[in-house]
Amino acid sequence: MEIKVLKDILSANDHIAESNHTLLRSKGVCTVNVMSSPGSGKTSLILETIRHLRQRVRIAVIEGDISSTIDAQKVSLENVPVLQINTGGECHLDASMVNRALGSLPLEEIDLLFIENVGNLVCPGEFKLGEDLKVVILSVPEGDDKVYKYPLLFSLADAVVINKIDLIPYSKFDVEGFTKAFRGINQSAETFEVSCATKEGIDRWASWLISKTSHPAP
Amino acid sequence: MEIKVLKDILSANDHIAESNHTLLRSKGVCTVNVMSSPGSGKTSLILETIRHLRQRVRIAVIEGDISSTIDAQKVSLENVPVLQINTGGECHLDASMVNRALGSLPLEEIDLLFIENVGNLVCPGEFKLGEDLKVVILSVPEGDDKVYKYPLLFSLADAVVINKIDLIPYSKFDVEGFTKAFRGINQSAETFEVSCATKEGIDRWASWLISKTSHPAP
Repeated sequence: MEIKVLKDILSANDHIAESNHTLLRSKGVCTVNVMSSPGSGKTSLILETIRHLRQRVRIAVIEGDISSTIDAQKVSLENVPVLQINTGGECHLDASMVNRALGSLPLEEIDLLFIENVGNLVCPGEFKLGEDLKVVILSVPEGDDKVYKYPLLFSLADAVVINKIDLIPYSKFDVEGFTKAFRGINQSAETFEVSCATKEGIDRWASWLISKTSHPAP
Repeated sequence: MEIKVLKDILSANDHIAESNHTLLRSKGVCTVNVMSSPGSGKTSLILETIRHLRQRVRIAVIEGDISSTIDAQKVSLENVPVLQINTGGECHLDASMVNRALGSLPLEEIDLLFIENVGNLVCPGEFKLGEDLKVVILSVPEGDDKVYKYPLLFSLADAVVINKIDLIPYSKFDVEGFTKAFRGINQSAETFEVSCATKEGIDRWASWLISKTSHPAP
């Protein structure tokens, strides 16, 4: 019974996700589902990307959190459209939550939509939202062994961003070891090393992202 | 239907958790459910606690991970009984997984049992395992705003350990701000500031823990 119900939920979710995706593509929106553990820097990366790209693409953000509007408040200071979804306990966003949010966004005026998922390196992997790209952030202090412990999200990622590389001198993090483990389950994703604190690596990340929108870099 | 099934699952889980708890108490085992985001230092704290207390209490560990036996391997080097549970995708441990593990542990020879949950600041809060104490670890690089975003686990905690305090000089983490937010939802839990890297604060944490076992500090 439990398994049947779960299958039904996932299948219904995929259906709504497909409909979200069709809508977003028809409006020329490139949609990025940003996932990571709590505190890896999802909001920080989105903020730095907005600052870097605001002259070239029109960005909007959907913020997913169990509770609070802290992240949406930070994003709103950048003067881009932002919507907060509070899941009220749910450990991930799902396609119907995003579907409701899309109705309140000016899709015709958006080139790049970030959906910041709930901080969770497990459950968001099961629920498609209608995104074009899945981006997983891993922060240096979390350690280089996370691929082994949380393989699903890393296997699904279109890009992995290693954030907080400014903390490498103070943490045991072997970039080469991480990359080797990651390539064992995902050969096609892009990888980026960035620091939202020092801005190192943001340029390359932002260039890749813009190449995925309808406004490719000149 | 979905809600009904979820209620049934949680109620069945609580029943098994209660049975685990009765068994563990009857053997004089103090059981600690250790929860946090991925990479906050659950295994590191358990390892440091074993090193600190091994002369005074008999410790065993149940390691919960979606996949891999990395953590169990680290713990086994300390020559304490350790069991790895691989959840195979599940985002949390549940009471029946722990129940099966208990059958393989020498309970008569254990004073303190750590159960390291899957790295997840959300879902483990819903599932009792039969523990005496819930300990939540928050690492400094995750940021001081996590209470607002992930309130359930912090509200249930018997103790919160702020780990990686050696990284405070390189991170924006306001201990006072965190504590104020935390006290807003939890007035009774103990709080500890530790660094498993420098060992700072481990002594006070270990003393508190030993006071909870049947072998109180002299």
